[in-house]
Amino acid sequence: MKIDILSIFPDMFSGVTGNSIIKKAIENERVAVEVTDFREYAEGKHHIVDDYPYGGGAGMLLKAQPIFDAVAAVKEKQPETKPRVILMDPAGKRFDQKMAEEFAEEEHLVFICGHYEGYDERIREHLVTDEVSIGDYILTGGEIGAMIVMDSVIRLLPGVLGNKDSAVTDSFSTGLLEHPHYTRPADFRGMKVPDILLSGNHAWIEEWRDKESLKRTYERRPDLLKNYPLTDKQKTWLKEWSKSK
Amino acid sequence: MKIDILSIFPDMFSGVTGNSIIKKAIENERVAVEVTDFREYAEGKHHIVDDYPYGGGAGMLLKAQPIFDAVAAVKEKQPETKPRVILMDPAGKRFDQKMAEEFAEEEHLVFICGHYEGYDERIREHLVTDEVSIGDYILTGGEIGAMIVMDSVIRLLPGVLGNKDSAVTDSFSTGLLEHPHYTRPADFRGMKVPDILLSGNHAWIEEWRDKESLKRTYERRPDLLKNYPLTDKQKTWLKEWSKSK
Repeated sequence: MKIDILSIFPDMFSGVTGNSIIKKAIENERVAVEVTDFREYAEGKHHIVDDYPYGGGAGMLLKAQPIFDAVAAVKEKQPETKPRVILMDPAGKRFDQKMAEEFAEEEHLVFICGHYEGYDERIREHLVTDEVSIGDYILTGGEIGAMIVMDSVIRLLPGVLGNKDSAVTDSFSTGLLEHPHYTRPADFRGMKVPDILLSGNHAWIEEWRDKESLKRTYERRPDLLKNYPLTDKQKTWLKEWSKSK
Repeated sequence: MKIDILSIFPDMFSGVTGNSIIKKAIENERVAVEVTDFREYAEGKHHIVDDYPYGGGAGMLLKAQPIFDAVAAVKEKQPETKPRVILMDPAGKRFDQKMAEEFAEEEHLVFICGHYEGYDERIREHLVTDEVSIGDYILTGGEIGAMIVMDSVIRLLPGVLGNKDSAVTDSFSTGLLEHPHYTRPADFRGMKVPDILLSGNHAWIEEWRDKESLKRTYERRPDLLKNYPLTDKQKTWLKEWSKSK
């Protein structure tokens, strides 16, 4: 997979591409990441990327020209692929694990990271294939949002995750939140691990985990249970809990 | 405000703290950010931070001891404040603009960034004040999520945002998604700015913006309209749109 990032703060990405799993994925050639400063594509001596909004108002907007030309340039370098051109924007479609899985199937992703008050609308209308929001909060720019999407997509690429970072029992991949986990020591400064986890009885442990996972989902994210295929046992537990409420 | 970040990949943060608005906010002493590698607090010669889960299963867990001791150390450096201790976790409470505003009132935030399969549950039970999720997607660790929360909180601190990055008409701060924005040129490669924005009639422009903002919200995020105090004019527009659907 090739990932192109267009940003006027290209140095923001060095910490993320130079560490942890993304670094390893780059070294192992599972993904190539290139960050382009689209200011370099801005016409004129001063390489201006922003301008005042038509109709007045506070804040500056990113101009169409530098971003159109930067996208054209990264497409030209990779003419055999048709990239998804992703605009990070709070009005976009909400990013979720399903979208991460969809992007992980692509060969080429291009992220446009905005700044200031917003973008010239023609970028959204004529250049972008996907408008993506990572959540209902305002950020100073699109860069950290692009890192979020990159990170969640890269970890899904074949050969990227080792056992240590196992993706098997993740939240959302099972459809329920995760049950509590404990590791040594069994007694940490008076705080103890539940006896059942030390019992060695795997059937009990599996049932405990199943129940705790369901309980946490029921308490914190009942919306996730709406389309969840419950077992008979899980239905009985839910009935108990809703009675004792 | 003081922000402490506990992470075993401290270098991941250099790009974000060394650029853009966060860098300026640090230079202007609006915020101090310190990243601590909690591996340094792990007991034993090899500074082990992870261990196998009790009861079996794939993946490794972060041990309680290094994180408890690292949190104690950052608290000790700042004994006059009672920090919010924030655990980045997909099972946490969903981060939103309201939570950003709440955190922006605090004097001291401590972020615990997890990795691997998860944390020892005693961290969640006995150490953490807030479990925070930035969205329904899986990341390789808590670091980029902590950057998201940091960025959205720091931009709200007094004196951080200049006019260029105006926070006045942001999405979510008005309760509606933003209307489209356009900047020069009026005709960019055949793509044109709506005539009304070039009209110079400010009353028309305000009405157009109000209508477009409502329309985008209606089409993309009708959930935001549920508790929105609609004007009579807005109610009329909504009726029109729902008829023509």
